[in-house]
This record gives sequence, structure tokens and C-alpha cells, in this order.
Amino acid sequence: MTGESARPIGVFDSGIGGLTVLRALIEELPHERFAYLGDTARLPYGTKAAETVVRYSVQAADALMDYGVKCIVVACNTACSVGLESIRERVRPLPVIGVIGPGADAACLTSRSGHIAVIATERTVSGGAYQQAILERRPEARVSVLAAQLLVALAEEGLSEGPIAESIARHYLEGLFGAADAHFKLEAGAAGTPVPDTLVLGCTHFPALIEPIRRAIGPRVTIVDSAATTARALRRELGARDLAAPGGASSVRFVATDGVERFARVGSRFLGRTIAPEEVELIDL
Amino acid sequence: MTGESARPIGVFDSGIGGLTVLRALIEELPHERFAYLGDTARLPYGTKAAETVVRYSVQAADALMDYGVKCIVVACNTACSVGLESIRERVRPLPVIGVIGPGADAACLTSRSGHIAVIATERTVSGGAYQQAILERRPEARVSVLAAQLLVALAEEGLSEGPIAESIARHYLEGLFGAADAHFKLEAGAAGTPVPDTLVLGCTHFPALIEPIRRAIGPRVTIVDSAATTARALRRELGARDLAAPGGASSVRFVATDGVERFARVGSRFLGRTIAPEEVELIDL
Repeated sequence: MTGESARPIGVFDSGIGGLTVLRALIEELPHERFAYLGDTARLPYGTKAAETVVRYSVQAADALMDYGVKCIVVACNTACSVGLESIRERVRPLPVIGVIGPGADAACLTSRSGHIAVIATERTVSGGAYQQAILERRPEARVSVLAAQLLVALAEEGLSEGPIAESIARHYLEGLFGAADAHFKLEAGAAGTPVPDTLVLGCTHFPALIEPIRRAIGPRVTIVDSAATTARALRRELGARDLAAPGGASSVRFVATDGVERFARVGSRFLGRTIAPEEVELIDL
Repeated sequence: MTGESARPIGVFDSGIGGLTVLRALIEELPHERFAYLGDTARLPYGTKAAETVVRYSVQAADALMDYGVKCIVVACNTACSVGLESIRERVRPLPVIGVIGPGADAACLTSRSGHIAVIATERTVSGGAYQQAILERRPEARVSVLAAQLLVALAEEGLSEGPIAESIARHYLEGLFGAADAHFKLEAGAAGTPVPDTLVLGCTHFPALIEPIRRAIGPRVTIVDSAATTARALRRELGARDLAAPGGASSVRFVATDGVERFARVGSRFLGRTIAPEEVELIDL
């Protein structure tokens, strides 16, 4: 299987948010080669119809297959929420890993109260995939999901801290968690707290906003970011199928459908290392 | 020419922002039929590469030609900034009206100091079309343009007033205009004011945010919204070519490339009247 195991891992996202997942994958799997495809020409997926997202996702999977990948990580929550099965069928028998299952795993293990909150894009919320994934694992759980579309634009714009980011985070989260102060009072005063004890970041853009989100929900709530759990799930899958790279250095091939300059500039923040515009190939899907 | 003059006017935008322009067109031309095409599957155009925007714009013009339109209004500033000539070539001899020329006309007539500010999307700003259009009309003018991408997301999300909208408007505009208070001091104290006296809303989403924008810049700056001047330019063009509708009631055919429900819900706010989801046709470009 050495030939197959040396092939790259395909990672797909609607844009650059998935680079937060790629970062976790590289940390967990430092000997792998990656091909990262961001469909930047057609982002955001989060406000589009389900059938459109499915069509785009399958086209992206086809493009990654052309690069000879050995498996595909769907790093876009929206694509996972509606398109994961279509991608699996398309690339069978290659393994396909999404971010929603691992995120639900982590949330269900973390939550003590069983009340789990999820913030995501409009499409992910209306598709109901997080509710379903969490309830499959913990049927007694209470799941509160909310669409926070403006947080995506905020992260894309690089406004990840300061008063604007904080007021937008509070706008979306205060209703669910109460003001950070009130939250303490509720926990201290009541026997069963009415607020969730776990918040799942159900969009790959949101880890960039973790500081204002933390300030809006207070220190007691556990934040679950599916990137790290997705990386561990991928490592297990590669091991089980004898597909782990035999060794060597990590490398990434960056591919985008539009805006190479912007991909490099904004993507550098998400990946945590500089991406040069010359590193990014432009393709048409 | 009666046959031709009875044909609809095609209006094209990357999404729903252009409905603010359509609203002005209907007010100015109450006897016309309109076909409004919003390329909602591929918005926003404002962060995409110029060649991508040109390709999408020409496809949209083709689709409007299929509806038998007598002229085309490009209600998207980004499409105008890079794609207006390509559209003109494609649909020749039909007249094509953009929003940038009329916006520049209004700004140049309005400004007394000759210092004109423009807020727009990233692509419109980097294309330089507003700078060029204003300097063609007033070569001595000083033009300050700035990209305000987050304002687009804010309008799309319907957060057009309140503390979040105000803090984002201040974030973009305070650097140019000074805090609203400081602005008065500058005007009162100095002989030549260093701040612009005219602000062009160079994106069709921005009229929805006029209140927080006004608060950020103070009461003295004139705000130019190109919708009304575009409507007057269109009326002149139709008159000159003997293409004005002979009479009858106004009607609109709404066409979108994705998200009919969202188009109806958010678009109603931009158009100023309710759009039912059943009124919106879905097409693929």
C-alpha cells in the first residue's frame, strides 16, 4: 500500500475558513502531503440552496480526485451538512471525513448538562445536520442552534477582535447564554442551569473569532472547535486503512477558484503561517 | 417603435442590493415593465477577480436578452466597475446604463469643496472606476475611496440600524471624516476643511444603511446615492431613443440564481414592498 499511502490528502472548503482545519490536520499529521481546494469564486455556501451546495461540493471532489488524493476531508460545515453523502458516493471507495461528526463527538463527550449550543451558517442550521448528529450520540441532549452569518463576514474581513467583533458576538450569543454576568447569577442561583454548557463552533471561520465569542459567553462554557477532533478522526481512519504516509515532510498544494491575492492575504491569518500568492493555483470548477 | 418600446427593461445585480436601484427606476418610470436578475448563487461579486466578474456579467446580460429586454441597467457597482464595456459590446445596439457614471455626475454637481469620498466593495475600489469617472468630470477634484466590505454583509443580514451598524459605519468612516464632533470643529476652525463634503454610496447595498452612515459622518456631508440619478439617466436615454413605454402599469419579473426564499425575505426590505417567494423564478446561469 506504500504507493497509495504516499498520495496527498484532499481538503475541500467553500473558501479559506477551512484553513483552520488544515492547520489542525498538519499539526496532527506532520508527514502528510495535502491538496487544499477553496471554492472562493462561489463562496459563501452558507446562504445558498441545498441542491446548489451539493452540486458545487461534488465538482470540488472531482477536482481533488484529479490530483490523485487518497482521501477527502470536507472542511466546510455547510458542504458537510447537505453534501457529505453525495461526495462519498462520488469518490467511493476513498474515505471521506466531514467536520460535523467529529464536532458532535467532542460536544457530546464534553457537555455535562446535556444542553449543547451550536453556531453555524444559515444553510447548516436549516439543514439540521448538527441537531441530528448530536441526538444520534446523546438522544437526551437539548440542542440549541443559531445562524450567525455576520460572524463569517467579520472573520473574512479580518476584524477578529475589538469592539465591533465583540458587539456582533454578543448580538448572536447573548440571547442564548444571557449576558456573561447574568450567566453566573443563573448558575449560582438555580439548581438546573437553563443555559448551555457547551458551544460548538459549527463554521470553520469561527475559530478566528474565539476571543470575542469567549467574552460574549463568559468563562464557564466549553468551546468545541471541530478542527482538532476532525484531525484525530482522520488519523484513525488512515491508520485503519493502512493509508498513513510512510514519513517525510508535510507539504500543501493550495488551489482556489478565484482571488489568489485575497486567498493568500486572508488565508495566512487562518492557517497561522504566511501563504505567498505564488503558492496558490487558480482553477475553474 | 411601439413594439420595441413595450418591451421590458432589464436590470442586473449580483444579488439583491440592486433592488434599491429598481425601486428608484419604478418611481421615475411608473409605466415600464422590468425584468430584475439577481445572481444570488454567485454573490458577492465585490471580492472576486475582475475577469470572473466580467464573465458573470456577460452571462447575466445574455439571460436578460432572452427575456427580450429593450435596454439593460447594470445596478451592481462592481459589475459596472469592470464589466460595463464587455456588456455593451455583447448586447449592442441595446443601450446599457451603469450606476457609476450617474453617481459621479451627482457627486461632481454636489461637492463644493471638490473633495469627494466614495465607499464601495473591494473590487470596485481596486478597479478605480469611481476615481476615473469623477476625475473625468472634475479634473481638479480630490477623491478618497475606501473599501467597506462588512457593510455589505450587514445590509444582507438586515442589521441596518442599532449599535452594531453604527460601530461598523464608524469603523470605516471615522478615519476619513473624523469623529462627527471633530468634524464640526475642523469646519469651524480652518479656512479649507480637510474632510470631504460629499460621500458617494458606491454599492447598492449601502442605501439600506443610510442612518448609521449619517450618524458616523455627521450632518454636514452630502450623501449621494446613485439610484435616483441612474433612474433619471435611464429616462433621458429611453426618451432620446424613442423607447419609453407608451403607458400602462409597472410590473416586475424577479429572477434569481439561488435562494428564492432569501431573495424574497431580504429583498422586500431593499425594494420597500413585499416580494412573495412565488414571484421569484429560479434560473441557472
